[in-house]
Amino acid sequence: MSVLNNIETPAVLIDEDIVDRNIAAAQGEFNRLGIAFRPHIKTHKLVRFAKKQIAAGAIGITCQKTSEAEAFVEAGCKDVLITFNIIGEAKIRRLRRLSEQAAITVVADNDSVIRGLSKAFDEARKPLRVLVECDTGLARCGVQSPDAAVQLARLVTQSPGLQFAGLMTYPAPNSTEQVESFLREAKARCLDEIGHCETISSGGTPSMKSISAGTIVTEYRPGTYIYNDRSLIERGAAVLGDCALSVAATVVSRPTPDRAILDSGSKTLSSDLLGLTGYGLLRDYPDAIVTGLSEEHGHVDLSACARKPEVGDTVLIIPNHACVVTNLFDQVHLHRSGVFVETLRVDARGLVS
Amino acid sequence: MSVLNNIETPAVLIDEDIVDRNIAAAQGEFNRLGIAFRPHIKTHKLVRFAKKQIAAGAIGITCQKTSEAEAFVEAGCKDVLITFNIIGEAKIRRLRRLSEQAAITVVADNDSVIRGLSKAFDEARKPLRVLVECDTGLARCGVQSPDAAVQLARLVTQSPGLQFAGLMTYPAPNSTEQVESFLREAKARCLDEIGHCETISSGGTPSMKSISAGTIVTEYRPGTYIYNDRSLIERGAAVLGDCALSVAATVVSRPTPDRAILDSGSKTLSSDLLGLTGYGLLRDYPDAIVTGLSEEHGHVDLSACARKPEVGDTVLIIPNHACVVTNLFDQVHLHRSGVFVETLRVDARGLVS
Repeated sequence: MSVLNNIETPAVLIDEDIVDRNIAAAQGEFNRLGIAFRPHIKTHKLVRFAKKQIAAGAIGITCQKTSEAEAFVEAGCKDVLITFNIIGEAKIRRLRRLSEQAAITVVADNDSVIRGLSKAFDEARKPLRVLVECDTGLARCGVQSPDAAVQLARLVTQSPGLQFAGLMTYPAPNSTEQVESFLREAKARCLDEIGHCETISSGGTPSMKSISAGTIVTEYRPGTYIYNDRSLIERGAAVLGDCALSVAATVVSRPTPDRAILDSGSKTLSSDLLGLTGYGLLRDYPDAIVTGLSEEHGHVDLSACARKPEVGDTVLIIPNHACVVTNLFDQVHLHRSGVFVETLRVDARGLVS
Repeated sequence: MSVLNNIETPAVLIDEDIVDRNIAAAQGEFNRLGIAFRPHIKTHKLVRFAKKQIAAGAIGITCQKTSEAEAFVEAGCKDVLITFNIIGEAKIRRLRRLSEQAAITVVADNDSVIRGLSKAFDEARKPLRVLVECDTGLARCGVQSPDAAVQLARLVTQSPGLQFAGLMTYPAPNSTEQVESFLREAKARCLDEIGHCETISSGGTPSMKSISAGTIVTEYRPGTYIYNDRSLIERGAAVLGDCALSVAATVVSRPTPDRAILDSGSKTLSSDLLGLTGYGLLRDYPDAIVTGLSEEHGHVDLSACARKPEVGDTVLIIPNHACVVTNLFDQVHLHRSGVFVETLRVDARGLVS
């Protein structure tokens, strides 16, 4: 049965054939490079797909929030990296409980985070693994220099309950040389002064293809590669056939010859532009431009389209950013090349804390 | 007890004192004008607040989707306007069931919608009330001229199971004259040709204060006025003291003297800019600029701030757009001037269909 017979729009459709291909291709490439693969679950938020990724060879998963780690450990994941400074007594208590059920690694980029973690893990059965987060050019979190990285690594080694496990970064796009140079120097300094620096963890689907033999990176954490999206197509990191996730929407109005209004707005696609023009790609109307989104309306300019959809037609949208779409839906519909497979609850939707 | 003692960040805080004031002020003003008040629930998505609005004098509520109407009718709301073209057999079957439990009004801006509704309501116990949606300048849904409005109104009156109930618009900002002129002409034509045109429904908090005595509008549907937000402050439609909703976030990193990173990104605040610079207002650091959002990180430029928050500090953010924030959280924390009241599940979060 066609997946489209089974749903009301707006709805998220996931082609599991493409998911399987994307998992196999990326895992195969990282196996070939000899780099550990630790996919980020933020894109799919599904236990089913985390298990597929691990079965294919991933060493564990990456989460951004403690609550996400809780959902996946509860479901049986045994090795989780949380790439976020964890602050606050309640969160750290939860982290301590988690660490009794699975191998947990966290990151830190400042003294205050390290002191908070150490206080709670002081008497833990096993130490908490900590990676020092490095700002290699993105200008988000992270220590600002290899010197600051080694200082913080030293603080970790001196802190009861904590174990220095290496370095972590989220790279800016197109900055491979800068990233490698920062991490090489920081690792060399850590080896000199601390004697070890096992893991060098980097991530991101946009930079995934720039990882090559000879990199300093020992572990990679891409998220979006499992679904891909319009932003990755526009950046040349994927093609349309790699896109597993689409949003099914209905044309609810054709107020003028050139305007269509869809039942999918920012509550469905999010307002993420990611530097692009337009809020999504209509698969079967590639010349249409999603010019704007209200919360529940998608505004489409059809002026460049030879063929135009009518009221009541279903259109499939490749969103600019797949990860944020899965956070907006309680469920997604799996299919294989259009044939309905199963409707799944999004296990880790809305887990913010 | 302070509401901040009871929560983990990021979290949505709602000051119920301000909610009560905002409801009373707007209802009072529309009572004075003699215009029916039908608030849109998209902002709060809470049964508790819909009941407050009705108790204060609202004639009913406005929803955007059938699923939202179902949630509020289930909770006891007796009069609901759904301001969206409803298309598809499954949705119309749900609408028919709803119409047996409450007074339901819908809108239509094209023949196809009217035919679909009529087919399902042909043998209904009571006819479905339909407003003709008019595009008075926003360039979203709606018929394009008073002439097209009366044509569609005629089709409604000729369609079994349907009752023509008047006109509906969502006005573009600062377009009062244009809106009034369109609606006046369309109403006059309907009175001439059909003999009645009871309801003239307009809406939107940005245009709320431009409604004055002598308007053609008989019913108004604002949503955001209950909470207000940064976009309404910037447009002069609210002041900081009118803002009931804030997001509590923690400073998780201070990588440089001028940069703070918060544990609240687009998964918390959404990417909505609404034409503004920056993604939110830090209440206690008004010179800070939220320059960018990753999914879980808020990037803050502190360079203009005399006083700067440290790692571990909690900050309160007035979001650009309150309505989209309540869709991102399973729960909100009510307080009165900072004193914790209750944590509520967001009843209509994520209802897209």
